[in-house]
Amino acid sequence: MTLHADPQHASTLRAAETAGEESATLACFAAGMRFEDIPASVIARAVELFVDWGGSALSGKGKPAIVAIERLAETMGPSDGPAEILVSRRSTSPLFAAMVNAAASHISEQDDVHNGSVFHPGAVVFPAVLAVAQATGASGREVLTAAVAGYEVGIRVGEFLGRSHYKVFHTTGTAGTVAAAAAVGRLLSLDPERMLNAFGSAGTQAAGLWEFLRDAADSKQLHTAKAAGDGLISAWLARDGFTGARRILEGPQGMAAGMSQDADPSRLVDRLGTRWALAETSFKYHASCRHTHPAADALLSVMHAHGLSSEDIARITAHVHQGAIDVLGPVTDPRSVHQAKFSMPATLGLIAVHGRAGMAEFDAFPSDAATRSFNDRVTMRLDPEVDAAYPRQWIGKISVETRDGHVLEGRVDEPKGDPGNTLSRHEIEAKARALALYGSAASPQELDVLLPRLWSVADWPKVERLLAAR
Amino acid sequence: MTLHADPQHASTLRAAETAGEESATLACFAAGMRFEDIPASVIARAVELFVDWGGSALSGKGKPAIVAIERLAETMGPSDGPAEILVSRRSTSPLFAAMVNAAASHISEQDDVHNGSVFHPGAVVFPAVLAVAQATGASGREVLTAAVAGYEVGIRVGEFLGRSHYKVFHTTGTAGTVAAAAAVGRLLSLDPERMLNAFGSAGTQAAGLWEFLRDAADSKQLHTAKAAGDGLISAWLARDGFTGARRILEGPQGMAAGMSQDADPSRLVDRLGTRWALAETSFKYHASCRHTHPAADALLSVMHAHGLSSEDIARITAHVHQGAIDVLGPVTDPRSVHQAKFSMPATLGLIAVHGRAGMAEFDAFPSDAATRSFNDRVTMRLDPEVDAAYPRQWIGKISVETRDGHVLEGRVDEPKGDPGNTLSRHEIEAKARALALYGSAASPQELDVLLPRLWSVADWPKVERLLAAR
Repeated sequence: MTLHADPQHASTLRAAETAGEESATLACFAAGMRFEDIPASVIARAVELFVDWGGSALSGKGKPAIVAIERLAETMGPSDGPAEILVSRRSTSPLFAAMVNAAASHISEQDDVHNGSVFHPGAVVFPAVLAVAQATGASGREVLTAAVAGYEVGIRVGEFLGRSHYKVFHTTGTAGTVAAAAAVGRLLSLDPERMLNAFGSAGTQAAGLWEFLRDAADSKQLHTAKAAGDGLISAWLARDGFTGARRILEGPQGMAAGMSQDADPSRLVDRLGTRWALAETSFKYHASCRHTHPAADALLSVMHAHGLSSEDIARITAHVHQGAIDVLGPVTDPRSVHQAKFSMPATLGLIAVHGRAGMAEFDAFPSDAATRSFNDRVTMRLDPEVDAAYPRQWIGKISVETRDGHVLEGRVDEPKGDPGNTLSRHEIEAKARALALYGSAASPQELDVLLPRLWSVADWPKVERLLAAR
Repeated sequence: MTLHADPQHASTLRAAETAGEESATLACFAAGMRFEDIPASVIARAVELFVDWGGSALSGKGKPAIVAIERLAETMGPSDGPAEILVSRRSTSPLFAAMVNAAASHISEQDDVHNGSVFHPGAVVFPAVLAVAQATGASGREVLTAAVAGYEVGIRVGEFLGRSHYKVFHTTGTAGTVAAAAAVGRLLSLDPERMLNAFGSAGTQAAGLWEFLRDAADSKQLHTAKAAGDGLISAWLARDGFTGARRILEGPQGMAAGMSQDADPSRLVDRLGTRWALAETSFKYHASCRHTHPAADALLSVMHAHGLSSEDIARITAHVHQGAIDVLGPVTDPRSVHQAKFSMPATLGLIAVHGRAGMAEFDAFPSDAATRSFNDRVTMRLDPEVDAAYPRQWIGKISVETRDGHVLEGRVDEPKGDPGNTLSRHEIEAKARALALYGSAASPQELDVLLPRLWSVADWPKVERLLAAR
């Protein structure tokens, strides 16, 4: 471990490096995170993820679920304060800014994802960090350091909780609460002891069930809102001396005991300080659930290779991992835009008909008969190779049966946006701009100013408002 | 089912009366609750529980964990509003009043408990209801109707989640979130559809792990604060059209799927409208975890029957149910006041030495050598009869070995405060007064006015502040 920290931290850390003290080791690592110790390539990726997040956060403007959470913030929160709600441009306390911004970040299904943990870090970490940084006047480097702490902790907690957890729980809600606590805790300079208390309060609030998918209900946005807000609360209370369980993650009545059957505590402390999980995080390219992306990219490759049009296609079989079946399987008859984003037939139908599955294509889906006709022509099948590689690697494998009787196979080993097939700086900025313009949250002229500012976050002496108040 | 509701509700209710629609049936029941349909004896018990709760809520004043949550409310919430924080007498939004009052209600371990569900309804239901009622100007009857809805729903959710859930999860945090949503949903007159959405949002936020007990951490108060606050948010959002899962309790990716191995959906709809679970709720007499009470009462009865003093006692064996061992077992060396309240040796030691285990006795525990000497003299042993009866019945069985070599057996079938061994109106009021005076949250003169007002809640035309602002 290459953790650099003051002597007191180091000794606490050593004491914690025994089995059964994984929460303490991880809390020490998060508390001791320093900008200087983070590799430049990791900082560069963090900046890219920050720009990418900005687009997602602005894209939520005007969606009914987000408007409802905005109204809740207006009724229950203060009408002024140091933190900025991006979609409404109102000012409020850090808690409510974090909640609304986190909800808004996750509704377009375009925010980043870490494959191995099946966790969307950006949607919970950046809203919590930005809101608190605006309150404390932190620098851009402190923001990035805090964000890295949040990503590293949250991703490891997601990996630790394992596949059994993700079958029922929305990891972004559960691991996300601890991630937000770690990030805000670092921003508030919590010592390791208080950081551990923050973890304790965060873990005991961690929640989020997949049941809402069946009804296309609004819970997904509530999960990110609450993860960001509850994590923030946890760190804030810990600074004030409020205590939490010391082994909330691995203890006999902790998160894993209650919410996982295959938890592996060694994942919590996996190569702390040498492995940078943030750099493994993927950008989402299509505007749908990440579980559809490998198959979507594989279909694109087949269609390009063979010059197919949608009329040529009789049937498609997507060879998938079990997690895709668990999450996408319940959506058998997609009707709404939201359901379409969690439907393999809808996503592959858009790719087949339009060659892309972006925000505009999904918005038109409910009345898009050509795409909807794919609902009976696409099936998912569990594939042992794909399943064995998941969640470390998200392989896309597809069989396309053409109307003239051929069966064509397609495959991608890394879907577009993964670290080995990443987006260029230009693609990241274009995606962020398109998302921000999508809900008219900012004008093109404002984005001409904002986007370069986001890219230069590491140079900010002090975090200011991102957009002018309205 | 004797539910009376308007025709639209009734038809929704019939449609939901099929297996797999338990959440919907329960939501219909809560939405259709009318004051006129609740038996007078149940209303009378609800009033007693309200008075009892008032004492607990005031008793939390000045405790560091409560002060930290008060400060959080001041930083993150508005500095004025329609709802009253009882311990600080500040005004704020309903969310923060509910959170602080709920935290304060649970710290003295004197708030009510329902045996069968091992759930503390009062600490989460009344804070949420009072805060919203102060905002909406509801009547006292509406408050009581909403509270009954909260108790009936929360108790059934706790029973449904079962013993496996309670081994790891603090049911008051989990079932409590749904209870608060039901209560506030009724107060906001949600129709069955919106009530079901409120359940969905509440269930997907439900959390609370027992891990904190090992470290005597502050999470217990966070659990009630968040249950009341998150339930309130859920109902508020549902009124605004925010949707949730329709089968959050019993669905394949719902609460039971994620957090229970022995869930029984039939418990959710057990005799709705004929069985009143609120009337089964117990008052807590001793100031400790309810799992210590049966043994404490059995010890009292042995000591009275045989004229024993603490010096006569060599050893005590408490014959208990498994839940007592799960919750109290981790506290092997009680040092703090809070740990003492979760320690069988500490509680029985206080009974043996002082004849009572009240707030003052627990506060003196850390330096009470006579009581602490019982730590090595008290053991818990799993008892098949006690365990089989639990949680329906909390039997107290105890063996006392005297210094002169006799073994004396004691037994109570219903601990003091249970419905069959309830407190008198005088005892309820005396307990509430003592609790309110304990933390100097109100003067004796103020209580002379407040307590009669609480008893007359059913006659309030409109909920006003309970205490003068400071």
